[in-house]
Amino acid sequence: MITSESNGQIKELIKLQKQARERRKTKKFVAEGIKMVLEAINFDKLDKLYVSESAFDRTAQRLGDKLERIPYEVVADNVFKQISDTVTPQGVLAIVNMPEYDVKEILSDERKAWVLLDDLRDPGNLGTIIRTSEGAGMSGVIMSKESVDLFNPKVVRSTMGAIFRVKFCYVESLIDIIEEIKKSGYDVYATAMEGSEVYDCVDYTKGSAFIIGNEANGVSDAVFEKASKRIRIPMEGKLESLNAAVSAAIIMYEMARQKRK
Amino acid sequence: MITSESNGQIKELIKLQKQARERRKTKKFVAEGIKMVLEAINFDKLDKLYVSESAFDRTAQRLGDKLERIPYEVVADNVFKQISDTVTPQGVLAIVNMPEYDVKEILSDERKAWVLLDDLRDPGNLGTIIRTSEGAGMSGVIMSKESVDLFNPKVVRSTMGAIFRVKFCYVESLIDIIEEIKKSGYDVYATAMEGSEVYDCVDYTKGSAFIIGNEANGVSDAVFEKASKRIRIPMEGKLESLNAAVSAAIIMYEMARQKRK
Repeated sequence: MITSESNGQIKELIKLQKQARERRKTKKFVAEGIKMVLEAINFDKLDKLYVSESAFDRTAQRLGDKLERIPYEVVADNVFKQISDTVTPQGVLAIVNMPEYDVKEILSDERKAWVLLDDLRDPGNLGTIIRTSEGAGMSGVIMSKESVDLFNPKVVRSTMGAIFRVKFCYVESLIDIIEEIKKSGYDVYATAMEGSEVYDCVDYTKGSAFIIGNEANGVSDAVFEKASKRIRIPMEGKLESLNAAVSAAIIMYEMARQKRK
Repeated sequence: MITSESNGQIKELIKLQKQARERRKTKKFVAEGIKMVLEAINFDKLDKLYVSESAFDRTAQRLGDKLERIPYEVVADNVFKQISDTVTPQGVLAIVNMPEYDVKEILSDERKAWVLLDDLRDPGNLGTIIRTSEGAGMSGVIMSKESVDLFNPKVVRSTMGAIFRVKFCYVESLIDIIEEIKKSGYDVYATAMEGSEVYDCVDYTKGSAFIIGNEANGVSDAVFEKASKRIRIPMEGKLESLNAAVSAAIIMYEMARQKRK
């Protein structure tokens, strides 16, 4: 059992929780809670499991046979608190190998429905967009390299497991991706207040992508220029904008609605 | 200028930020940032303004004539940090008198589109739902008394000013409200996995309400029983549910879409 905060594994876990750089370097991240751990095992991405002393019995029960086949450590409760990113830790977390997807794989997905994120910054918004993308059946999420780190503990948590089931990638240039999608014959929609068409008056059924911009500044000018069409979500009252994850959800579910009809 | 944390006004501000009980007792809350402060002034609800020393000049410029007509205090920067709920304070916040609405006023709204929240717990979700309600043109938001406090600083912030423009109230019994809406001839929809109709296959144009439940447990059994119809948002993949604020947004914007057609 690990009983000291100065243990090397504990130090590494804290780094992985706090530093995007460490996650990028090692290509590993931390997933917390029994559901996330089960997803990581199913997905064959679990690197090592850590269980708090007091959570050991119930975790062993939940994992059953699986526990024999994965490397794990038991951690003293007071030390576990240090490695958990949550206020009330469930007592189970794992180091997980990052899933990686090629942008070509995402672009060739047959559902032909892409979410493009231009410098999205809020971890909760990104997690929620990944989660909604699974529900709405999107091909994947393609992010500008300045967007928030998907393996940030708050993002991982708010995906509710969708991080293991939705394809995603970061790209050097979102503009190149937009060009490629347009060249393949699909529309790319940018959301903007001054958009010329209401989001539900365009036809998404033949395949399309849409861009959600930064929470404070919207879609950047250079990216906006490249989009094939501009759409807006109508708003009553005096609101300046909707939340980014809400805007994304409204458009994704309009795409899904049109495909169902 | 207030230079000490032991100043009575500072102590009261900290209480108002941290304690729902203090907010309920005084019927006041704290709104941060220049936009929120301007909304509070326009809404004639500002009780007292607090500006940090370093933010005073730019705040005076933004407020112009208004500053002469409202009571305010300048606060030393290090003390201001203590009263702010944000990591990087803008240096301006205000004590605001709570807006209050009668449930009858909300129920008689001519748009006939109500959001009912059954024990919603996450502050960010509530703020986002209030914000989306303004955009989608809802009549108002009616919450069970166990729902999270609307005047929690995180909720106030995430409404982006909609807290001053959307009608809301807490009720002792959500079941009584459902009965009343049904008696007036409108449908009340409960969202649930096992809902019998897809959310976009029902007619919302004659007036309707929908219920969003608790993040962990969904709509409670007693409330669920009283709803006139059950609807579901279709989900692909292995997702158990969508985020509560996302579910609410998808239904609100389907209501708005049907009314526009």
